[in-house]
Amino acid sequence: MVIRRLPRYRRYLADLENRGVERVSSGMLSEILGYTASQIRQDLNNFGGFGQQGYGYKVSDLKTEIDAILGLGEQYRMAIVGIGNLGHAVSNYLYRYLDEFVVAALFDVNPAVIGSEIAGIEIRNANELDAYLAENAIDIGVITANKEAAQGIADSFIKGGVRGIWNFATIDIDVPDEICLQNEHLSDGLHELVYYIHSK
Amino acid sequence: MVIRRLPRYRRYLADLENRGVERVSSGMLSEILGYTASQIRQDLNNFGGFGQQGYGYKVSDLKTEIDAILGLGEQYRMAIVGIGNLGHAVSNYLYRYLDEFVVAALFDVNPAVIGSEIAGIEIRNANELDAYLAENAIDIGVITANKEAAQGIADSFIKGGVRGIWNFATIDIDVPDEICLQNEHLSDGLHELVYYIHSK
Repeated sequence: MVIRRLPRYRRYLADLENRGVERVSSGMLSEILGYTASQIRQDLNNFGGFGQQGYGYKVSDLKTEIDAILGLGEQYRMAIVGIGNLGHAVSNYLYRYLDEFVVAALFDVNPAVIGSEIAGIEIRNANELDAYLAENAIDIGVITANKEAAQGIADSFIKGGVRGIWNFATIDIDVPDEICLQNEHLSDGLHELVYYIHSK
Repeated sequence: MVIRRLPRYRRYLADLENRGVERVSSGMLSEILGYTASQIRQDLNNFGGFGQQGYGYKVSDLKTEIDAILGLGEQYRMAIVGIGNLGHAVSNYLYRYLDEFVVAALFDVNPAVIGSEIAGIEIRNANELDAYLAENAIDIGVITANKEAAQGIADSFIKGGVRGIWNFATIDIDVPDEICLQNEHLSDGLHELVYYIHSK
């Protein structure tokens, strides 16, 4: 499950790059990230053996390589369904921080928000989702609606040809094998925090 | 880093319990969670060796045990600072889904929201945070404000005696060793999703 560690490596490398640091050792990565240095060397060797004994890794090369592995060289078009507080927050986050991810369309069922805009993107009526997806290529469908609506939205995304679904609804949704599914569970991070508090 | 897997075990076991399933094998856990069966047996043995060869684990016992390890037997009082869309969404999520976590107080700097309520909890002026923490015991401080404000809020939480900080601001904050810090990074889940899409 090295993939679960790669986004963390990438985040840390981007931070080093922003601070002008050019080289990093597996020992430094270990200290910050909390994995052992040998785990880190093994992870990075899996992807082609960057780094030279005693010299560490060149930050920019390693980040570029990880970006390529993660598939961050291309842009991804997203549609978000469910523009309550959470959908609004996710939309803002993508717009502000993640250039590779383009919010192409927003949908909700609430007449009070339909027609308003977030960062220049209009919130459409959710009953137009199928028609929109038939006309527009969307890579990733985001579900920030309630759990009762989640499976229906996922079915529309699948029929509409998305490649992956990012699900924030607190329910397991069924997707066919060819669709990538990422479930977000806020409780995981909180439970991890409580473990550390509890074991102090 | 077995701790990073425990919240996922717990989530899955809670789901099995809700569906009335009484026993589960490491093979079943493996299939759902994507870790190897031997990894799972090793993780669970670390915490005292539940399960009997060939009989699997009793779902309720295993969940109870994991709850105890995670420290979920007690209640945690939370204060949330930054009640924009994200803070609102986090507050709703805690209120709806996580009984062990009690939202005790909400704070913001925006006069337009100060004085309004979420689930019966008033949004206070952020300039009252220090005074509030001096009078009220808070276990976990949640930062859902912007990154410019994050360190100042963290400093108030630390001075006010919180045990842990759950940080959603997209910045590294400094905390002393005795304070537990959990940073949430929405981008990690999205980057993981893109990796799977990209490698299909």
